[in-house]
Amino acid sequence: MAPPTREQCLELDRHDPLASRREAFRLPEGLIYLDGNSLGALTVGAERSVARAVGAQWGVDLIRSWNVHGWIDYPATLGERVGRLIGAAPGETLVCDSTSVDLFKLAAAASLARGARTQIVTEAGNFPTDLHILQGLAKLLPQVEVLAVPRERIYEAIGTDTFLVVLTHVHYRTAEMFDLAEVSARAHAKGARVLWDLSHSVGAVPVDLRGAEADFAIGCTYKYLNGGPGAPAFLYVRRELQDGLMPVLSGWLGDARPFEFQDDYVPAPGVDRHRCGTPPVLAFAALDGALEAFDGVDMAQLRRKSVQLSSLFIELVEALPGAGALSLASPRDPARRGSHVSFAHADGYPLMQRLIARGVVGDFRAPDLLRFGFTPLYLRFVDVWDAVRILGEELAARPDDRPRDTPRLKVT
Amino acid sequence: MAPPTREQCLELDRHDPLASRREAFRLPEGLIYLDGNSLGALTVGAERSVARAVGAQWGVDLIRSWNVHGWIDYPATLGERVGRLIGAAPGETLVCDSTSVDLFKLAAAASLARGARTQIVTEAGNFPTDLHILQGLAKLLPQVEVLAVPRERIYEAIGTDTFLVVLTHVHYRTAEMFDLAEVSARAHAKGARVLWDLSHSVGAVPVDLRGAEADFAIGCTYKYLNGGPGAPAFLYVRRELQDGLMPVLSGWLGDARPFEFQDDYVPAPGVDRHRCGTPPVLAFAALDGALEAFDGVDMAQLRRKSVQLSSLFIELVEALPGAGALSLASPRDPARRGSHVSFAHADGYPLMQRLIARGVVGDFRAPDLLRFGFTPLYLRFVDVWDAVRILGEELAARPDDRPRDTPRLKVT
Repeated sequence: MAPPTREQCLELDRHDPLASRREAFRLPEGLIYLDGNSLGALTVGAERSVARAVGAQWGVDLIRSWNVHGWIDYPATLGERVGRLIGAAPGETLVCDSTSVDLFKLAAAASLARGARTQIVTEAGNFPTDLHILQGLAKLLPQVEVLAVPRERIYEAIGTDTFLVVLTHVHYRTAEMFDLAEVSARAHAKGARVLWDLSHSVGAVPVDLRGAEADFAIGCTYKYLNGGPGAPAFLYVRRELQDGLMPVLSGWLGDARPFEFQDDYVPAPGVDRHRCGTPPVLAFAALDGALEAFDGVDMAQLRRKSVQLSSLFIELVEALPGAGALSLASPRDPARRGSHVSFAHADGYPLMQRLIARGVVGDFRAPDLLRFGFTPLYLRFVDVWDAVRILGEELAARPDDRPRDTPRLKVT
Repeated sequence: MAPPTREQCLELDRHDPLASRREAFRLPEGLIYLDGNSLGALTVGAERSVARAVGAQWGVDLIRSWNVHGWIDYPATLGERVGRLIGAAPGETLVCDSTSVDLFKLAAAASLARGARTQIVTEAGNFPTDLHILQGLAKLLPQVEVLAVPRERIYEAIGTDTFLVVLTHVHYRTAEMFDLAEVSARAHAKGARVLWDLSHSVGAVPVDLRGAEADFAIGCTYKYLNGGPGAPAFLYVRRELQDGLMPVLSGWLGDARPFEFQDDYVPAPGVDRHRCGTPPVLAFAALDGALEAFDGVDMAQLRRKSVQLSSLFIELVEALPGAGALSLASPRDPARRGSHVSFAHADGYPLMQRLIARGVVGDFRAPDLLRFGFTPLYLRFVDVWDAVRILGEELAARPDDRPRDTPRLKVT
């Protein structure tokens, strides 16, 4: 069957129940932004919320804003709103610090409770910060060993020495997705806990942490949640485990009575004990506004559109005359794929630069991956069609057609 | 001699070389803000910088902003600018994370290099997060012990078992100041390193870390540096110690080649290895703009005005008819005092609420301290005079004159 025409894509957009969500975003005219899996786009809500936090709150109410504008409660209130998107119960999620710091916090706390167990199991090729942070913890605790194994050997690596399994739900390169419930069951069968990095899932893929009996989770909010560059991360601790999990980064705002200024740390009840220092309010304000774009969104509907967009992209790309130079690096089965798609191309870096120069923004991951993210809240089916048309033209172009000025994209 | 009159204070303002700096700030009309030691005021620069980072950078250039707008370099570039205010050489200061997290990072890294030494010495009654964070580290490392002793016993507590001394330069309650160079010398004589918390010093008190041979430092930027609520903290590592200090919170942006996405962490050269996760750019943008207020400021001149303001305040308060109810909790000797002044008052909490209701904003620290901060960049001598006049009226007021609606101030 012939791939959809541009007119058919426009027709899909006319019937897209999420189409109006695009109005919540400030997208530059003429740009097709397929990098929301790296940095989500600016929303009208975030822009308004930050301006208010700066001018009307900090500028006018100054120190009083901590209370009258709810700054001090931001980690908890935003935590609840993120928690609803990942299947958390109330009181299980906190927005704070960076993904790296939150991983350290939970992995260190878990190692306090490890008993005689010594191993953390993770995936080789996991996102670098996950591996690096675990390596740092093991440097501090010489009894702890980090075992990074290929995906197909993870189950056999989980043993009676394992106290923690740390995996990323959707892989940053391939978008390959783990089965949360199955991994939890396998780990629990060996007496190990599971910590999920949801950075490439949250806001794009339905996640049901409680349903999957996940123990811990972390993730970033600057990708599909559009929280802004370097927006604060979140952490999740299953309620049943909260009392037994003592923070190692025991900062004053995780104390039970921070404003009594006592010398001895007493952990706050529940997940709040994992707060640490004073939160960067302006970054929280951006996330606060950005999350408005998710108000009332049905995550199953969001997922349907995500799969439609990424499947359409694969179908159109593979129908291009020059498609032989590309090979799909993501799972073809949408049930095993997150919300981005990667294709390998021998000359991928300059090819991506040419796409960007023509207004199709994806990114490149060495050595050879072109990565394209599909954000259901602001992407249209016709955007996918237009992006693939431009990709086709660039695949067919001669090398000396390449643009000269190629800014290097860096951050995932 | 009679204390200065209001007219004499206005005269001091007319000759104040820093007077024009006030124009850099957006201060609410009629408010006398004596809480810049807790949350610094909004600057025109910060407001402009945040609006630009949101609208023109994130909103338009999206992911490319990491490079074209220098976001990825913010920890280093802002680190250099803060470093100039604390006597650091280039390449010794980084802006990142919170003060609590940065303290953990440096104390954990120092404990990797502790050899057979087991003790961290700190001050009882130090700011709670400093004590709590050290306690958390000791929980993870049972061989490490935290010894919190009264100020007058610190020197004797530093022994050949001590690997780290952690002190706050200016005390958050009393503003009492340590002698950086003397403490360093005492610690070094026993083979220990010193880590300074400069949260209540930076931007208000001249600090010469290199001159004092300090080893490590941390501090926050949301007090006298006016970086915004929960603005990112900074950390300092003396150049000579950098190669020997391995990060424990080894996040991907502290790796030598973060954009090669390698499994194994290789520390970046110098202080950069202490970067961790992705920085919250909007918070950095605020600090970026806020620091403009310090461009060209002579720190010795700033200190002179700070001492003049706080000394004037003490003189005027102690000349009040009701002054008998107050007792100075800060050092009377300005050479031993930072840039805030605390008075104890048996009924301090409601008294501070009444001051705030009348537009004189200080804060309260249990059980009985009224705390007033003096920010030389935006406070006028006449503000001090007017604040003390109102304090005098409130000291003389009957209890039933008290306002009913008293918002609770919380964050230091």
